[in-house]
Amino acid sequence: MSWLENSIMARKGVARGKVGAEHRLTEVEQGSYHFVYGPYASPVLTVKPGAVVTVETVDAFGGAIKSEQDKPSEKLNFPYLNPQNGPIFVEGAEKGDALAVHIRSILPRGPQPAGTTALIPEFGGLVGTGVTAMLNKPLPERVKKMQVTPEGGIKFSDRITLPYEPFIGTIGTSPQIEAISSLQPDAHGGNMDLPDVAPGAVVYLPVNTTGGYLYLGDCHGTQGDGELCGVAVEIPAIVEIQVDLIKGWPLAWPRLETEAFIMTIGSARPMEDAARIAYRELTRWLAADYGFEELDAYLLLTQAGRVRLGNMVDPKYTLGASILKKYLV
Amino acid sequence: MSWLENSIMARKGVARGKVGAEHRLTEVEQGSYHFVYGPYASPVLTVKPGAVVTVETVDAFGGAIKSEQDKPSEKLNFPYLNPQNGPIFVEGAEKGDALAVHIRSILPRGPQPAGTTALIPEFGGLVGTGVTAMLNKPLPERVKKMQVTPEGGIKFSDRITLPYEPFIGTIGTSPQIEAISSLQPDAHGGNMDLPDVAPGAVVYLPVNTTGGYLYLGDCHGTQGDGELCGVAVEIPAIVEIQVDLIKGWPLAWPRLETEAFIMTIGSARPMEDAARIAYRELTRWLAADYGFEELDAYLLLTQAGRVRLGNMVDPKYTLGASILKKYLV
Amino acid sequence: MSWLENSIMARKGVARGKVGAEHRLTEVEQGSYHFVYGPYASPVLTVKPGAVVTVETVDAFGGAIKSEQDKPSEKLNFPYLNPQNGPIFVEGAEKGDALAVHIRSILPRGPQPAGTTALIPEFGGLVGTGVTAMLNKPLPERVKKMQVTPEGGIKFSDRITLPYEPFIGTIGTSPQIEAISSLQPDAHGGNMDLPDVAPGAVVYLPVNTTGGYLYLGDCHGTQGDGELCGVAVEIPAIVEIQVDLIKGWPLAWPRLETEAFIMTIGSARPMEDAARIAYRELTRWLAADYGFEELDAYLLLTQAGRVRLGNMVDPKYTLGASILKKYLV
Amino acid sequence: MSWLENSIMARKGVARGKVGAEHRLTEVEQGSYHFVYGPYASPVLTVKPGAVVTVETVDAFGGAIKSEQDKPSEKLNFPYLNPQNGPIFVEGAEKGDALAVHIRSILPRGPQPAGTTALIPEFGGLVGTGVTAMLNKPLPERVKKMQVTPEGGIKFSDRITLPYEPFIGTIGTSPQIEAISSLQPDAHGGNMDLPDVAPGAVVYLPVNTTGGYLYLGDCHGTQGDGELCGVAVEIPAIVEIQVDLIKGWPLAWPRLETEAFIMTIGSARPMEDAARIAYRELTRWLAADYGFEELDAYLLLTQAGRVRLGNMVDPKYTLGASILKKYLV
Repeated sequence: MSWLENSIMARKGVARGKVGAEHRLTEVEQGSYHFVYGPYASPVLTVKPGAVVTVETVDAFGGAIKSEQDKPSEKLNFPYLNPQNGPIFVEGAEKGDALAVHIRSILPRGPQPAGTTALIPEFGGLVGTGVTAMLNKPLPERVKKMQVTPEGGIKFSDRITLPYEPFIGTIGTSPQIEAISSLQPDAHGGNMDLPDVAPGAVVYLPVNTTGGYLYLGDCHGTQGDGELCGVAVEIPAIVEIQVDLIKGWPLAWPRLETEAFIMTIGSARPMEDAARIAYRELTRWLAADYGFEELDAYLLLTQAGRVRLGNMVDPKYTLGASILKKYLV
Repeated sequence: MSWLENSIMARKGVARGKVGAEHRLTEVEQGSYHFVYGPYASPVLTVKPGAVVTVETVDAFGGAIKSEQDKPSEKLNFPYLNPQNGPIFVEGAEKGDALAVHIRSILPRGPQPAGTTALIPEFGGLVGTGVTAMLNKPLPERVKKMQVTPEGGIKFSDRITLPYEPFIGTIGTSPQIEAISSLQPDAHGGNMDLPDVAPGAVVYLPVNTTGGYLYLGDCHGTQGDGELCGVAVEIPAIVEIQVDLIKGWPLAWPRLETEAFIMTIGSARPMEDAARIAYRELTRWLAADYGFEELDAYLLLTQAGRVRLGNMVDPKYTLGASILKKYLV
Repeated sequence: MSWLENSIMARKGVARGKVGAEHRLTEVEQGSYHFVYGPYASPVLTVKPGAVVTVETVDAFGGAIKSEQDKPSEKLNFPYLNPQNGPIFVEGAEKGDALAVHIRSILPRGPQPAGTTALIPEFGGLVGTGVTAMLNKPLPERVKKMQVTPEGGIKFSDRITLPYEPFIGTIGTSPQIEAISSLQPDAHGGNMDLPDVAPGAVVYLPVNTTGGYLYLGDCHGTQGDGELCGVAVEIPAIVEIQVDLIKGWPLAWPRLETEAFIMTIGSARPMEDAARIAYRELTRWLAADYGFEELDAYLLLTQAGRVRLGNMVDPKYTLGASILKKYLV
Repeated sequence: MSWLENSIMARKGVARGKVGAEHRLTEVEQGSYHFVYGPYASPVLTVKPGAVVTVETVDAFGGAIKSEQDKPSEKLNFPYLNPQNGPIFVEGAEKGDALAVHIRSILPRGPQPAGTTALIPEFGGLVGTGVTAMLNKPLPERVKKMQVTPEGGIKFSDRITLPYEPFIGTIGTSPQIEAISSLQPDAHGGNMDLPDVAPGAVVYLPVNTTGGYLYLGDCHGTQGDGELCGVAVEIPAIVEIQVDLIKGWPLAWPRLETEAFIMTIGSARPMEDAARIAYRELTRWLAADYGFEELDAYLLLTQAGRVRLGNMVDPKYTLGASILKKYLV
């Protein structure tokens, strides 16, 4: 993958994008999973820049929904949802730096059907919720289990097979002093549910505390834009990531790079604020690193910016704004 | 284009998608352009289903911005912005029907540089406006003129050439009793600024009054998702459309069809409401016409729905939600 | 009412706030009621500044809901809702002027029970609607009829009598070229549902067209902040207003004055934009007419501004921002 | 204060609203102030239900802004803003209970001028911020210091004296597993900036962890609705509260009681969601405790509900919805 050799990670990283030591974070080594992103937990692993870590994630329900007869309201125990691996302490990381996380692969694990989606009362994009508070009665609960394999795709129904397009739903660093629910996305990353956080991409995350404290979990076999009902094809997974460290690159919000484009990610309500965050970050990035005058960057993104809706269901909505690298030369 | 022969227009249209009489609506034949979508204007043209109409549109500024030295605040005269061709009276159209508008081609016209973008005070997605009211000072005004040709693309700058990806920024029918500014998108269509309204696509629009009263204008040479600063690559154009009529198909909001996907379009503030509208319409469409149980459609769109952000700058924001036809068989 | 002699209407009005000719606009004289605010209707009455007009309004349902057994979904015929009196042509009014409308009295009329409230499917602040689109089932329909008298108040139930606190739910001028549904509030006024538009107050409305074209209707016997379910105590009424004209006072949004305070009114979605509009207008008003430096006005309103929520149910939400006159000396 | 003897606190509290032991929490006894609401700090004080606690709060800037020449951007060190007293451990409090906090008095303390307001870059209701992200330049910074005394009021300027109407800007309990910035309001209370949280009122707060962990700080000498520029009349204060415990009263959101009314409090973005939360909670409360059928409560609040806007500047906006007790008999 030659583009990676010219990625921001390779050009700015402490390890120059080179692969370092290998680590494993199995379920057993993880022990307790975490339900907040914060500095109050003890690191489960310490790595040097360049480290490759193989992580065994559990699904967003911690495996609690085992069959289509299970009722989510009976099996789930709020706020103990969306369990996360980590935190991983990255040596040398200090506030004002950025972690670069190259996603090398995501594979489903565990018995089939490995995929779960569900209708959960008062959760989702087309229903009243705890905050978009309505008096209407909730929808009925429902669970769908799906076979998920890289080769065979996702068996949504007898008629419909969806492609296996896995990504990490929740990934981020610790906030400086807050401990934020793993259900929420924010400036530190978290539950962004953005399909671009997929194998091949490099995610750049702000470091807010010594060691960075990288958390991740909540893999999805595939997902539509917006994660409409709130539950994608949730899978337990084996995730292989490479972690590098970029010193002195303070990021207000997460960023992402692929072979084709660079992206900024905003999370907020209402949704237009997520779009404003993402596009302002991208405007400023073009001005800071790509030789554009700020207002010219604004005009260019008007004509060539692309938007990807991550989620429209979490406590904050997530949007990525991107531009093709070919316009940045 | 064989897919068209199996399009909804072909299957349900009065003219069965067949091409009928040809009409021209030149600048001269148009005479006065319109600044509202409403039933109070007299039709400039009456056509039968199947008619092909070649329309000469002016740009969103009515050509008032002629050079990069022009100041938009001096040249533009609110509310006389975004001039529209039409209304076109479609014989047989009654409330509860739908117009099918197949976009056959869009070509730039007039002297080069044909394309205009600009920064206009208190307008745009990253500035305070008349409704997202701020005390901050406005950005400076700016105009950029660009060569726009189908072969050569769009000369954004010395370094950057953007592809020619034209579409109709504003198209719709008359509301039943309202006359809505051509700057605004709503249930009748209007200023949606959605790049999918492009050559090859068929747009389906609700008929609210006898004759439907089709208006269009505001062509763009290309545009990024969201039309960030509020002004795309605005061009005067020659647009060729084919208009068919579908009886007894009441649409709450506009829809769109291409070879690959079907799309529903919502316009609202905040942006999540535009997404909710689009996705609810799509859910209901799958249930009505494609054999899905409604909640199963909701689950499928969660995994396979796609979102396109049209504009994040108009009086209402516009989003399209779509699904690939291959999942609907 | 001595404060009126020092009101803005008295100080700036063409008629100096003096009472002029008396006019009546009975149901018979009104003839057809209107369902849009626009310039396309013919004036039903022409008055000089200072005129006092006694208007017979019908309720928001045009009287269609006659008993608690009526089902709104069967009796109401969208978009023919919220019928309005007018337009009243005010001699001398030109774009850039303002109308001053002093509300002298509002009395219920017609047989008792004169008051109606109702639950209407997909309408209201705590339910999914056509734009906050949900898949949840609508609430059941319901109608409540209430005795409404100035002396006896409003008989909400055996246990509860609410005070008679009448106001005009919908009042405004014509937009310049649009015809806007009488269900919608906007910069021209319209369906603001703001309880401060009550007897004793003077409302100031922007003039956008020659003659101003004043419309009004939709009186409420009382209403809570936000008009939560979407339907206040709707009553047919006899409204007495005094209309004056202020030349050369361009208003971006409606304003209001009472003995105690001045208020600016914003209508938008999301709700924070309505608040931003109202507070920015008030900030600018303090700077323009009351000797404040703009940022000092901003600081003062931070400590002493008051907000009244009109509606949280209409196509735009309405908020009034006010400050006590005693701080403006 | 006889109404208190019939308050919910008196009727349901473990201490029956009776005054118990007296405690002091001076600056010295507090030691480190806190910048998050969470379960990870150690209690600074343990009390029994009925306890009266006298608390020395510092202002929202921790006293860092000492003169009108100070620049907030130089003196403030984000996220170390809005320092809080506590946590106070309430014996017997378990998840599912509620704390009742009767505010007995708030007095300014420290040298005069004790009050501070300021314009802080990218913070406030009428400016672009970190989330409502704009490209406009920030407003200039500004600091205003004010004399604040209970007798003499607040000297806003030579011309304007505002009344001393003190309240607690930030008060709440610990979330169950999160540690939430003291700048943010949410279901646990926090930075609500709601002027009704004033002497005489009883605030009811959900208990999410053993001991409840009560935090408070951020007193204001007065404040307008919405706290427009983001900074009220910030004062260090001596606050006297009485803390009682109500067993088995799970609250989804904070509530408040005065002699005249009961109120529910919602915090969310966009602002309409804060209103929806508050009004749904109030609807449900009327149904649960006051004998109303739910939809009848909805209709009553439509006619008699009142809304108070707390803040329109914090990470979530806060609104209180209330109804007069006289309608609940």
